[in-house]
Amino acid sequence: MSIDVDQLRQGNRRALAKAITLVESKKAEHREQAQKLLEAVLPYTGNSIRVGITGIPGVGKSTFIESFGQTVIEQGKKVAVLAVDPSSPIAGGSILGDKTRMEELSRMDNAFIRPSPSEGALGGVALKTRETMLLCEAAGYDVILVETVGVGQSEYEVASMVDFFMVLMLPNAGDELQGIKKGIMELADALVINKADGDSLNMAQQTRRHYQNALHLLRHTSFWTPQVKTCSALRKENIEEVWGMISDFQIDAIKNNAFHEKRARQAQEWMHKLLHEMLDLKLKQNLEVKQQMPELDRQVTEGKTTPYLAAKLLIDLLFKAN
Amino acid sequence: MSIDVDQLRQGNRRALAKAITLVESKKAEHREQAQKLLEAVLPYTGNSIRVGITGIPGVGKSTFIESFGQTVIEQGKKVAVLAVDPSSPIAGGSILGDKTRMEELSRMDNAFIRPSPSEGALGGVALKTRETMLLCEAAGYDVILVETVGVGQSEYEVASMVDFFMVLMLPNAGDELQGIKKGIMELADALVINKADGDSLNMAQQTRRHYQNALHLLRHTSFWTPQVKTCSALRKENIEEVWGMISDFQIDAIKNNAFHEKRARQAQEWMHKLLHEMLDLKLKQNLEVKQQMPELDRQVTEGKTTPYLAAKLLIDLLFKAN
Repeated sequence: MSIDVDQLRQGNRRALAKAITLVESKKAEHREQAQKLLEAVLPYTGNSIRVGITGIPGVGKSTFIESFGQTVIEQGKKVAVLAVDPSSPIAGGSILGDKTRMEELSRMDNAFIRPSPSEGALGGVALKTRETMLLCEAAGYDVILVETVGVGQSEYEVASMVDFFMVLMLPNAGDELQGIKKGIMELADALVINKADGDSLNMAQQTRRHYQNALHLLRHTSFWTPQVKTCSALRKENIEEVWGMISDFQIDAIKNNAFHEKRARQAQEWMHKLLHEMLDLKLKQNLEVKQQMPELDRQVTEGKTTPYLAAKLLIDLLFKAN
Repeated sequence: MSIDVDQLRQGNRRALAKAITLVESKKAEHREQAQKLLEAVLPYTGNSIRVGITGIPGVGKSTFIESFGQTVIEQGKKVAVLAVDPSSPIAGGSILGDKTRMEELSRMDNAFIRPSPSEGALGGVALKTRETMLLCEAAGYDVILVETVGVGQSEYEVASMVDFFMVLMLPNAGDELQGIKKGIMELADALVINKADGDSLNMAQQTRRHYQNALHLLRHTSFWTPQVKTCSALRKENIEEVWGMISDFQIDAIKNNAFHEKRARQAQEWMHKLLHEMLDLKLKQNLEVKQQMPELDRQVTEGKTTPYLAAKLLIDLLFKAN
């Protein structure tokens, strides 16, 4: 697979799509090629704001991204939309309505929508998404939206790879009712209450006040206090305010040096996580370990040897074999 | 250090204490000797019930263990008391009152009290405690109490190494008020409300009913529904009922084959945890990795290389060197 780095950098969408396909490939030779490509584009990355968006099904994520993306493009920006889980509407298209609603955005010149990759071995979907973000940045995208439906651990993964993490909510109060985990709320830089229109407007305002009071208890950085906003993605109301908030955050974060500090910390943590996954893989792929594991597992469960001795034996096998 | 396995098996307390000291030693040659000892005693282990006890400071853990231990000994059993955190009253003796209160139990022939080891490298205090439990079993102790004050992760560790996990509580309702994490409540096989005496008796009964209603929502095994009890360790009231409950649990669990299944699962999980810790240690102790790590960390945080490439380079170093 040959990728033209110059074309990619000029924002050629075909080149970008091809580069992402390379990065997503599981073939060993593609993996190597992908890493060379990423090294080549690395000097041209980093100039975006990465925005994570989560929320339970039915909160209107697709409508929000459609509306938000258009608003940002109208401000002269280029927008890329990525998804981290295969069950995402962007990815699977299982819900026809969502596909239709995203159509407007996908037709725009300055938008790039990429469905979620299927699960990769090492680092999982998160690795692909992180690397795809780099490609999008090299291709000149100013705003990268990373969407997750929040199944399992994916919200934590998304929060650990973006600059700004946003939770979309319904207008009825109570995060327990909305099925949002407490740990996720604590990661949020903003809560955005969608569907604040018509009969729900009052309730949305109430919910906003409720969370605004609760947010005092949550995480603060030195320069940013999490915000609570209401909007209606369907009626395109208050979407500009949401973008204004994120834009303000970006300016403040860069001014306070927090922007690059956070990215540096994220990259470091990611490196250490990959390191551990690679070690695990070494263990799993070692033939002697593979052979011995079931027997040792049996001995341990039957109390014939100690877990310590069994583990030590496997480690010795792994490091002898190399 | 020479340990007499026969003396240990006959319940000689000096031999047991010496064996534990060997197991706790950080010296490499002691570690090897300790593993041989553990292998030698392994056939004589497994015949105890391991009971984890946690609760916030002030709940009366030492008084409870003192009173509970005596009750169990009166039933003809031998009791060992271990602690998993250095901040534990048993371990540190920072609170003179606790030492005094434990004195009665510590003077009994069929009691063995061992303070918590200082933090070990691999597997931490949990490894030492798990191995010490095996030694106590070989020495004929029927009931092993493992105490934790519940700082950090220690409750989870204790829950993962015992047959029965018990949370001591104060008579005032509300686990949030008592500073007990929700995850801990979910691990409990029993909640025991201590200090159910005098003016607090009514409140303790109320609290018991409160938790009894809530427990329906929590974890059940096929044969055991978590129980809520009240007692007064100070007045030695209802302590026999608590022991009766644990004794019933043991009989039922053995009958249902759940007892050995749980231990087998715990041993297996522990083996895999040790395996990962040993891998980490290999990485940390590798000289070339040590040398390259700071430079790669810098390159990653400065965006000069990708986390993937940096991690891959370190892994290649680790496995080349061996």
